Amino acid sequence: MSADPSARRGIPDATVARLPEYLRALTGLAERGITSVSSEELAAAAGVRSAKLRKDLSYLGSYGVRGVGYEVDHLAYQISRELGLTQDWPVAIVGMGNLGHALAAYSGFATRGFRVVALLDQDPAIVGQEIAGLAVQPMSELTALVSEQGLAIGVIATPAASAQDVCDALVAAGVRSILNFAPCVLVVPDGVDVRKVDLSTELQILAFHEQRKALASPAALRKAVAP
Amino acid sequence: MSADPSARRGIPDATVARLPEYLRALTGLAERGITSVSSEELAAAAGVRSAKLRKDLSYLGSYGVRGVGYEVDHLAYQISRELGLTQDWPVAIVGMGNLGHALAAYSGFATRGFRVVALLDQDPAIVGQEIAGLAVQPMSELTALVSEQGLAIGVIATPAASAQDVCDALVAAGVRSILNFAPCVLVVPDGVDVRKVDLSTELQILAFHEQRKALASPAALRKAVAP
Repeated sequence: MSADPSARRGIPDATVARLPEYLRALTGLAERGITSVSSEELAAAAGVRSAKLRKDLSYLGSYGVRGVGYEVDHLAYQISRELGLTQDWPVAIVGMGNLGHALAAYSGFATRGFRVVALLDQDPAIVGQEIAGLAVQPMSELTALVSEQGLAIGVIATPAASAQDVCDALVAAGVRSILNFAPCVLVVPDGVDVRKVDLSTELQILAFHEQRKALASPAALRKAVAP
Repeated sequence: MSADPSARRGIPDATVARLPEYLRALTGLAERGITSVSSEELAAAAGVRSAKLRKDLSYLGSYGVRGVGYEVDHLAYQISRELGLTQDWPVAIVGMGNLGHALAAYSGFATRGFRVVALLDQDPAIVGQEIAGLAVQPMSELTALVSEQGLAIGVIATPAASAQDVCDALVAAGVRSILNFAPCVLVVPDGVDVRKVDLSTELQILAFHEQRKALASPAALRKAVAP
């Protein structure tokens, strides 16, 4: 029926969740001028085992070459295509506090195929201000943004107290994919995907390694063997 | 030698990387008043397969109870302890632009055991300003923060152009764990851990599902089968 590879094959959600990590690792390699990578190196960079990596990439029809590995640019393209990043995704950011400001200026969205087409805020005092080259619009513009600009993804950068109201407005306007930076759980109808960003996730992984380093230090050993 | 469980057992890095996801899912369940959860439910909430979840949790000595599953609060505590979150980690944020402001005010750090003890900036015009209850300090204070406050983790929220300089200053002061929000690759000596945050990761997962939804819609099917 469809020309798109992801519609033909079933890719496990757990694999989908790891693809951005592989893409991030590949982008890092490309930035350092590395053009090919072994499955072991790429797996180490992405923090998975190489058998898992090879299995994940096999869902994309990508098997690498024995003794050579994967071509960095080509694999990055394959993953981008699978994730739908080779097309342009119009994104709106709602909530123009510090986080909204930071997200509006974040260059990492554009390089991943996400085009910020609108910034919105519920506060009339903020509507009309220009941020990162865009005039902040009122929430009443949402429906027009969906029908006229094809707005597909809404990013919620409001305080927790107003996040559900903003979420309801996005859903009512027809947005079916929501990225939530507010520290709260959102309730949405079936057919709407919500991903919640926890900015402390990477800190937690660092804490694990920091703890391990601290325990391996002489002071910690003395403390641990003390009576 | 040590009383800490993580020092006795080797937990694979890939498992460590998934623990924050499990903790996030458990926190979400607890917020909704749910006190026990099956491995299938928890695996679905975290986006992994249940066999993987059970294997990961077995490294923590946590096996659940047949027919009952896992006790939400207790498992959250076990994961927190394993990640080192039951102790207090002093954190400094460097770079007080919009992202730095947003991170300074982010409540999710404190609830995870990360205490923001210092905000710093290279710009003398910003030093001394009060943000989220803390006066912004100059970079020259870093060494004192490490020795006097036990500063363990540095968060870089600067533009890409100054991130490496800031990173070098953190490392020189004795910080061995760095969380990098700047869109660039940092070079650090052995023994220093760097994690790079890509704010577009979750957007990429949403794009995959958005693409699948779009392909399943009648308009997309008509387009796909057109000659």
